[in-house]
Amino acid sequence: MPVGTYGTVKTLGSEDLEALGYELVLSNTYHLSQRPGSGLIERLGGLHNFMSWNGAVLTDSGGFQVMSLAKNRKVTDEGVTFRSHLDGTETFLTPEKSIEIQAQLGVDVSMALDECPQFPCTKDEAAAAMARTHLWAPRNLSARREGQSVFGIVQGGVHEDLRRESADALTALPFDGYAIGGVSVGEPTDLQYPVVAFTAPLLPQDKPRYLMGVGHPADVLHAVSCGIDMFDCVLPTRMARHHSLYTMQGRVNCAAAEWAEHGGPHDPASVFPATERYSAAYMRHLFKTDEPLAARLATLHNLAFYARLMTEIREAIGAGSWPGLAERYSRA
Amino acid sequence: MPVGTYGTVKTLGSEDLEALGYELVLSNTYHLSQRPGSGLIERLGGLHNFMSWNGAVLTDSGGFQVMSLAKNRKVTDEGVTFRSHLDGTETFLTPEKSIEIQAQLGVDVSMALDECPQFPCTKDEAAAAMARTHLWAPRNLSARREGQSVFGIVQGGVHEDLRRESADALTALPFDGYAIGGVSVGEPTDLQYPVVAFTAPLLPQDKPRYLMGVGHPADVLHAVSCGIDMFDCVLPTRMARHHSLYTMQGRVNCAAAEWAEHGGPHDPASVFPATERYSAAYMRHLFKTDEPLAARLATLHNLAFYARLMTEIREAIGAGSWPGLAERYSRA
Repeated sequence: MPVGTYGTVKTLGSEDLEALGYELVLSNTYHLSQRPGSGLIERLGGLHNFMSWNGAVLTDSGGFQVMSLAKNRKVTDEGVTFRSHLDGTETFLTPEKSIEIQAQLGVDVSMALDECPQFPCTKDEAAAAMARTHLWAPRNLSARREGQSVFGIVQGGVHEDLRRESADALTALPFDGYAIGGVSVGEPTDLQYPVVAFTAPLLPQDKPRYLMGVGHPADVLHAVSCGIDMFDCVLPTRMARHHSLYTMQGRVNCAAAEWAEHGGPHDPASVFPATERYSAAYMRHLFKTDEPLAARLATLHNLAFYARLMTEIREAIGAGSWPGLAERYSRA
Repeated sequence: MPVGTYGTVKTLGSEDLEALGYELVLSNTYHLSQRPGSGLIERLGGLHNFMSWNGAVLTDSGGFQVMSLAKNRKVTDEGVTFRSHLDGTETFLTPEKSIEIQAQLGVDVSMALDECPQFPCTKDEAAAAMARTHLWAPRNLSARREGQSVFGIVQGGVHEDLRRESADALTALPFDGYAIGGVSVGEPTDLQYPVVAFTAPLLPQDKPRYLMGVGHPADVLHAVSCGIDMFDCVLPTRMARHHSLYTMQGRVNCAAAEWAEHGGPHDPASVFPATERYSAAYMRHLFKTDEPLAARLATLHNLAFYARLMTEIREAIGAGSWPGLAERYSRA
C-alpha cells in the first residue's frame, strides 16, 4: 500500500496510482479527521469518492499518529485524550470513536485502535500496551457498522511469549484480518525479523495478514516468506521526496553530481513506463532547481519499483518458489 | 506557450503537456544558462531531448530576466554586464552570446537580444532602448547558426511613432518572425491595447507575430483580433500555484471556504479531462493541506482552459468570424 496520508499519495493523482497498478492505498484517520474532517468526507460520499479512487482503501486507527504527533496525550483504559498538533483542540479517542470515524470515511478495511508501545520499552511496558490492546479489541468490534471490515492488531513487542498471548487473544475474536503492530518503530532488523517470523504463523491462514509500516524490499521479501500478505510503508514515497531512488543496485541519490551529464537511466534494470522518457541528468536538474516535477518523477519511479517487487513476489508464489528473488533484491 | 522556465512547466511532465494538446513551450535562456548550463544541455542533445519534449520550444534572449533578476547590471552598446542572482558570477551577455546560447539549447525559435525599458519610462528612455535594440538586431542575425530561426522584437514603449520606427527598422532585416516586446511590463490595459492594435498590423502577415508576456484571456482575444499569432504567459501556471482557477465565470479562489463541501466542479462550463474526476471540495482540501497535487491539478486545469481558448479562437478564425467569443470569455 502506498501511503496517502491526506487522501493523496504525495505528488500523485489517483490516475497515477491506477497506471502504476496499485489497487489498495493506506490513508491516515488522525490526519483526515482533522482536515477535512470525517463528517465532511462522509457527506461527500466517502473517501473513495472524495479522492476519486476506484481501488480499495485501508485506514489506520489514528492511534499511532496520536502517540507520535499529538500533544498532551493521556492514555487510560477508556481511551486517549490528546490535543491536535494543528490547532490544539482537545479530543478523546476511543476504540468506538476510531471505528466510527473509519466508517464515516467508508473505507474497505478499518484498523482496530490499539496501543503501540515506543521502542525501546521494557517487557512490562510491552505487556501493559498489549493488555490494553486486548481490552479495547472487543470494543472495536462492537462498534462496527454493518459490513465494515475491521482488522485486529497483535502487540507484544519483541517478546515471543507476549506475541503468542496476543495472537491467541485476538484470533479468538471475529476480526476480518490480522496485523502485526509494534514493528518498524525504530528497532533494528535483527530484532524485527524474529518477531515477524514467529508471529506471522500464529495468525489465521485464511484471513489477510498485514505487517504494519514495513519496509525495505528485503524486509518485504522476508515477511512474505513468513506468510505476510500486506504491507504499508512511507519509504518509497518519502525517500523519493528526499531524492533517493530505489534501484537493483541499491538506493541512489539522484541529486548527486555524478548524474549531471548522465543521459540514460540510473539503473538499466530499473526502468519503468511512468518515467522512462526522462534521463538521470534531467532528474538531477529538477531536484537542483527545486522543481515540483522532481519529487513527482522520483515518487513514480519508487512506487513502480515496489509494484514490480510485489508482482515478482506474486509470480514466484504462483510458481511455488522464488529462486534468486531474495538475492536479486539483496542490494535494493 | 506555457512557460517552462527551467525546462519544465512547473508541476508537469512533457506527457502532461502532450495530453493537454500543447505543441510549443517557452523556456528561459537566463535560467537554463545558469542551471544546468547551455553547454550541458547541448552535450545531452539539446533542450528537446533533455526535457523529453517532442513539441517545439521557443526561448527568450535572457535579456528580460537579466534586467529583472540579475544584480549589478550595466548596459552599454556592446552588451549587458551582470552578476548572477544565484551565485554572483559576473557574465557579459551580448546579442551574439544570446544567440549562441540559444543555438546550444537547440530550440526551434530563438529571440533576439533587445533592450526592454521598464514601465513607466519617459519617451526619451523608450527611444534609447529602441535605438539599442536596433543596434543589436543585425548582430543577433549575424550570430545565427545554419538553420537557426531568430525573431526580432519591436520596442518603442507606448508611442505610436516609435513603434512604427521600430517595426520599419526590424522588418527591413531577415528575421524569421516578429515579436512585440515591452508590453505586459506593468502598464494598464488601456495603454497596452492601443500598442498592440497599432503595432501588430505593422508586422509582416507572412511571418509569425508574437505578443510577449500576454496575457489574460480577454487580452489574448483582443490581440488575435489585431493579428497576433503567438503568446506566452505565466498567468495560467502562476495563478494555479496561488490557487486561482480560470473559469468562464472569472477566476475563482479554489482554496476558499465556499468550496469545502462542493462535490462538483467549480464551473460546469470549465470541466476538462485532466482534472474532471476531482471535485472542488477535494481541490480545496489539497490546497489547505499543502499537498503537492494541489498545484498540479490547478495547473492542469488552467492550461486546459487556455488550450480550449486557443482552440476556440482557431475554430472561429477558420469559420471567418467569432460571434460571441469575446463575450463568452469576457468574465474569464
